Amino acid sequence: MTTSETIHDEDVRITLIGAGTIGLSFAALHLSHLRDASRLTIFDTRDDLASYVHSNLPKYLPPEQHASVSQIKLATSLPSAVGKATIIQEQGPENAAFKTAIWAEIEEHAPEDALFWSSTSGIPASVQSQKMKDASRLLVVHPYNPPHIMPLLEVVPSPSTSDAVVERTVSFWRARGRTPVVVKKECTGFVANRLAFALLRESIHLVRSGVVTVEELDRIVETSMGPRWAVAGPFKSYHAGGGAGGLEAFMKNIGGTVQACWDDLGDVRVGEGQGWEEDIYAQTREAYGVVDTGLRDRTTKRVLEVVEEEKSKG
Amino acid sequence: MTTSETIHDEDVRITLIGAGTIGLSFAALHLSHLRDASRLTIFDTRDDLASYVHSNLPKYLPPEQHASVSQIKLATSLPSAVGKATIIQEQGPENAAFKTAIWAEIEEHAPEDALFWSSTSGIPASVQSQKMKDASRLLVVHPYNPPHIMPLLEVVPSPSTSDAVVERTVSFWRARGRTPVVVKKECTGFVANRLAFALLRESIHLVRSGVVTVEELDRIVETSMGPRWAVAGPFKSYHAGGGAGGLEAFMKNIGGTVQACWDDLGDVRVGEGQGWEEDIYAQTREAYGVVDTGLRDRTTKRVLEVVEEEKSKG
Repeated sequence: MTTSETIHDEDVRITLIGAGTIGLSFAALHLSHLRDASRLTIFDTRDDLASYVHSNLPKYLPPEQHASVSQIKLATSLPSAVGKATIIQEQGPENAAFKTAIWAEIEEHAPEDALFWSSTSGIPASVQSQKMKDASRLLVVHPYNPPHIMPLLEVVPSPSTSDAVVERTVSFWRARGRTPVVVKKECTGFVANRLAFALLRESIHLVRSGVVTVEELDRIVETSMGPRWAVAGPFKSYHAGGGAGGLEAFMKNIGGTVQACWDDLGDVRVGEGQGWEEDIYAQTREAYGVVDTGLRDRTTKRVLEVVEEEKSKG
Repeated sequence: MTTSETIHDEDVRITLIGAGTIGLSFAALHLSHLRDASRLTIFDTRDDLASYVHSNLPKYLPPEQHASVSQIKLATSLPSAVGKATIIQEQGPENAAFKTAIWAEIEEHAPEDALFWSSTSGIPASVQSQKMKDASRLLVVHPYNPPHIMPLLEVVPSPSTSDAVVERTVSFWRARGRTPVVVKKECTGFVANRLAFALLRESIHLVRSGVVTVEELDRIVETSMGPRWAVAGPFKSYHAGGGAGGLEAFMKNIGGTVQACWDDLGDVRVGEGQGWEEDIYAQTREAYGVVDTGLRDRTTKRVLEVVEEEKSKG
């Protein structure tokens, strides 16, 4: 990467398109790295944008940063929102027509070397860039919710995205202590959601089969693979489980049980009349009411801190 | 539960059948709760049992407990090993014939009200108890490896196991600050492994499809669902993700992507000639060599501590 391709922090101007929960969480993340909050612009077409941002964004910020909220630029006109941006990060409606149209419009008004990032969880850059003149500028930067807490960013280029754009994106996030991982092929749901949804499907199946309740299933995950995978992912964990012989020895020992489980995994479907929804929704509401996400986020942050701390001790 | 059913700590005498890694890890866990280490017996038919236990068990223990290792009773004769035990916990070979035979023999020599627990990951109590006179005494107590660190114990009764035995088992583990969860039906792999293996299958599929490497996949899990699920299991997490509308609102928003991922999940198989093994084993060895499980266990312990700490703050 040549120096001219690097975004120097003092030159960063970020425009967020869409001020939903993901937008506000990214705003909080960016604010914690920008010396000058006026280099952050939030664009949204909602009428009450100023009062909405001023009353909701502080919830994502430590008290000492609340004052910076008033310095953020708010915009309801797209051309002026993106005219001077070096990074444009989109988290609008999950709707291909909306995204395809807005990127063509953004491209018209944004500086030539600005980076274009979409936070979409499902619409690949190759679809979103269809009306752009230069599709090499756009890629997906998919966070794990909420992005101001979770380190992961799935960086998913389309086949048209240029390598330089991927590199500038990865280096931006690394410099901020986050964990960008480049997903080499556009695929349905990218990686994190596919993995989590595979486990969710089996979770629904087991609850529906009367094996455990919703709450028991959560407790099982919270006291086993959750803390384990916070420290070592599935391959590393099973590799350790095999001792000196590694993953291969593990599969030699327990591969029969692994295959028997795979053969027996349940198949459930999403949608009206599938039978499981009403039961699972009711159990979940009953168990948790409205979740205290403040507590969840504080705890998750401490989990990430101790993992880093122990790693740095070696 | 009546008082007569409770095991009072001062009366506990535990015999572990099998001194592999699970056996030693359970020995370490029990030692940290027993005031008198001579109330723990380890039975194993290996010739070098004494030197093996004395050189390996201390690795699982904090330094101040090393001295207690020499007070543990070691046994190579089954009748004398179980004759006075109140709890007999088996982690021998994963082999139905072995387990069926040993429980019949244990039943002959153990006190009438001793609890019988198997650590098996795959052979249900209804199979293991087939040659017992009284099948109501046996159940599975399946740990998540290593049990001296991980709180979860899957308690899996057979249809014959008595409620009193389940209750005494759960209350024993609760009193030791662990998390026993009763699995209501015997099913292949119980719950934790089924869930983890569902995610593992998709992990292998994504690596094999060239979407990410083994190491990138682990990093994705370690920086997203791992720390999240250490704090809130999948149902609670998605319930929070739906805001005030909960899981139902979450599925309304993103159910289309969930189903699209489910439809697209890969199917891989375990076994010679399946193609993925060589590649995945090589990548994993290359990435990790031999994993430092000491570091992993210390970090996991701290993760569990901060989760408990924040929970108790509310």
